Amino acid sequence: MSATAAQPATASTASRLLADLRAVVGPENILNHHDELLVYECDGYVIEKKVPDVVVFPTSTEHVVAIVKVCNAHDVPFVPRGAGTSLAGGTLPVGGGVMICLTRMKRILEINARDRYAIVEPGAVNVWLTRALAGTGVHFAPDPSSQTACTIGGNVATNAGGPHTLKYGVTVNHVRGVEIVLPDASVVQIGGVAEDDPGYDLTGLVVGSEGTFGIVTKVIVGLTRNPEGGRTLLGVFDSVESATEAVSGIIAAGIVPAALEMLDNIMVRAVEDAFHFGFPVEAGAVLIMEVDGVEAAMDREAQAITEVVHAHGGKVDKAIAWRTRKEPEYMAIWKSRKSAFGAIGRVSPTFCTQDGVVPRTMLPNILRFMEGVSKRYDIRIANVFHAGDGNIHPILMFDERDPDQVKRVLEASHEILEECIRLGGSVTGEHGIGVEKMAMMPKLFTPDDLAAMAAVRDAFNPDGRCSPSKLLPTGGHCIERASPGRRASA
Amino acid sequence: MSATAAQPATASTASRLLADLRAVVGPENILNHHDELLVYECDGYVIEKKVPDVVVFPTSTEHVVAIVKVCNAHDVPFVPRGAGTSLAGGTLPVGGGVMICLTRMKRILEINARDRYAIVEPGAVNVWLTRALAGTGVHFAPDPSSQTACTIGGNVATNAGGPHTLKYGVTVNHVRGVEIVLPDASVVQIGGVAEDDPGYDLTGLVVGSEGTFGIVTKVIVGLTRNPEGGRTLLGVFDSVESATEAVSGIIAAGIVPAALEMLDNIMVRAVEDAFHFGFPVEAGAVLIMEVDGVEAAMDREAQAITEVVHAHGGKVDKAIAWRTRKEPEYMAIWKSRKSAFGAIGRVSPTFCTQDGVVPRTMLPNILRFMEGVSKRYDIRIANVFHAGDGNIHPILMFDERDPDQVKRVLEASHEILEECIRLGGSVTGEHGIGVEKMAMMPKLFTPDDLAAMAAVRDAFNPDGRCSPSKLLPTGGHCIERASPGRRASA
Repeated sequence: MSATAAQPATASTASRLLADLRAVVGPENILNHHDELLVYECDGYVIEKKVPDVVVFPTSTEHVVAIVKVCNAHDVPFVPRGAGTSLAGGTLPVGGGVMICLTRMKRILEINARDRYAIVEPGAVNVWLTRALAGTGVHFAPDPSSQTACTIGGNVATNAGGPHTLKYGVTVNHVRGVEIVLPDASVVQIGGVAEDDPGYDLTGLVVGSEGTFGIVTKVIVGLTRNPEGGRTLLGVFDSVESATEAVSGIIAAGIVPAALEMLDNIMVRAVEDAFHFGFPVEAGAVLIMEVDGVEAAMDREAQAITEVVHAHGGKVDKAIAWRTRKEPEYMAIWKSRKSAFGAIGRVSPTFCTQDGVVPRTMLPNILRFMEGVSKRYDIRIANVFHAGDGNIHPILMFDERDPDQVKRVLEASHEILEECIRLGGSVTGEHGIGVEKMAMMPKLFTPDDLAAMAAVRDAFNPDGRCSPSKLLPTGGHCIERASPGRRASA
Repeated sequence: MSATAAQPATASTASRLLADLRAVVGPENILNHHDELLVYECDGYVIEKKVPDVVVFPTSTEHVVAIVKVCNAHDVPFVPRGAGTSLAGGTLPVGGGVMICLTRMKRILEINARDRYAIVEPGAVNVWLTRALAGTGVHFAPDPSSQTACTIGGNVATNAGGPHTLKYGVTVNHVRGVEIVLPDASVVQIGGVAEDDPGYDLTGLVVGSEGTFGIVTKVIVGLTRNPEGGRTLLGVFDSVESATEAVSGIIAAGIVPAALEMLDNIMVRAVEDAFHFGFPVEAGAVLIMEVDGVEAAMDREAQAITEVVHAHGGKVDKAIAWRTRKEPEYMAIWKSRKSAFGAIGRVSPTFCTQDGVVPRTMLPNILRFMEGVSKRYDIRIANVFHAGDGNIHPILMFDERDPDQVKRVLEASHEILEECIRLGGSVTGEHGIGVEKMAMMPKLFTPDDLAAMAAVRDAFNPDGRCSPSKLLPTGGHCIERASPGRRASA
């Protein structure tokens, strides 16, 4: 790419910014042609778009520090991005400016299976770490459905979950520390390889902060011992309702499944058409039910699950006994589940994957509600979700070229999320707030609660130059005036 | 108590403060006689003392709000206190002022075993919750040795651990949310009964913040399913070294024990003299080794542990198979362990319980080092510790009436903690920084790291009136100038 690329209106300012960034990372690590930048106009949330002014690809912490200094000197906003798999617009460059793409900081720096940690750069893809740990007896537990693409930095930003969240928790439960470049370009080490640390738990604060505190440049992840074995069962039900009741029945029976995933009929058909796994396409719903742990307990737990399935009118179509998660049959069933979104891509030009949470016992209610929404807005909705967590992922299918469909999808999404709140749940289980759901925050939190969050954000990011308009409104005077720090000193 | 109590020098100011506080909580909920206040001059850390000006006992969140407003109006510092079991001076009223004692906010407000949470007031004693949950099939996992006295609010303040931390984690892993009165007297709800929440993880930030962000007035704790059963084994070894090697051996064998506690010979003798449990008083060290979980796996795991013990020259003196943690033999062994500190009270007029962490593999090194320290400073040191976590608790015995002994204990403690850092560990595993270890913070963190923590603290507590001089130095200009927020906007 050359320096004569298409320039924004204020050419001289923009070209000085570009020259300064080029001096930091070299011309090979910058994109600024409009056609190249188009790739970065959105992430997995395709409804809002904004082209960044420039995309830089740092290859070291020193690069990130220098880039942030340049942005501060030019007073332009900056936003980090990993693989762009965010489903909530977490990497949308709302006010333009500099996108800091971390995909070239992708090394696995250290693996210590004995003390159960690894140190990785933020651009390392989730599944690379899984592969690198093969044979060590330990693994990195968070396994988002997008794990073959999403980066560990992105997992940290959104506090990502996955099918095994039910038993193993979300990303924050598996991060021991980070190195972060703060918005003032200082580099701070938070946490460390040891499991507990004195002082404030800033690691927990940074995980899930969606880039609003700075740019994470290293992640120390905790590793989890592999189970001795497990059982993965495919349950087939006439209806989504009987399947959800079986989910409640399994939990009530005192079993802690490693995963409990549901696919509705639309989803089963899409997956089956795409991958030919042998899913029963007539089923009203399919449940993937998994237990893992001490081998001696597995058959008994699988039997208990089978009994619950039968009690709710379902049948167990497959039962896989496995010793490692690398066995072909095991991998096939999970590939089908994790490729569900890809399968939908074959049947709809565009789709919006929503992310809501309800108390597990409210699953039948929200599913019935979504049927109504689907009819009222004339939008097809497929469902695949982490049933054990009450974390729903309705997939709203539409054609983004039709503005009316876009409008209907937005309104339908909104109704579904409002119903989640009304049922005692929340508007995101694992994808984050991003730009998509900022307007929902006041429905979940009181002004004082939001002021406390804003006060913390402002402590790190007082000018709001880093990831502006993400997670919380930036610099809104109502919130600023109400922030606890300012009120107390007033 | 009457309004004519002994008054400090500035009688009129002090009496106005007292009158204002009395108007809030009523005369029955205030102490201000000097002889009554003496009880509150220190907590479990007896080396520094300071009498508060007044102690108030709120019985509601509204009381706490009104008390904080009075303190702000009078510009006096305030500090929360629970049962005063802190071992690091966490409740020392460093600058005098108002002590807010939460022991009359002690109700268990709700228990929901199905959704696995309970809501308690901060003054509820840890073991009360355990008792209230009997028969529900779930329990509150954090079980500090002081659990019959310490409050859940104190557990939250220090992010307390306990013998079962090894498998079940520390307090933060079992807190879903809090209600907190911020230093500006606003009331904020953080987290909730659901397991995941959008927005910043302020729950994790508040847990372990030692009262420097405000006063927690409600705690939503997560409850853990009881195991089907377990095995508790008493291992007897010739030396502390062979016992610590067995600890490493057990972990290396792939067992995740529920607890791995060590008592050295001095400790075994003290416990045996006090409680006559039948501990072998000639043993160089005793290990309490526990596994819990699926009953079908227990015998095999107990056998594996026994083999490791034998391989390191030890023997298994007792092996208790239990189905609940209420069985008498089970309770007796843990009573002995948890009363270790009390037992020391019978053999030494005063003692200082230290709290350090080393990588587990460094346990033999730190134990050898402590032997040398004991000799050099002529201070007897008993050892009881969470061996599985590498969390040591040397107990330094002395007579506080002898200033030279006090000096030697402080220097010996300091040397031990410095060695913990040198070995790759930290200066506190579970008791917190308090006032005792503030000076060690710069040895663990860079100025930028500390500035980031100070920035967060200042966001909540800008005037430092709430729990001053705890965890981090208050209002030191070096730190204030270096805080990221201020630097970025400078």
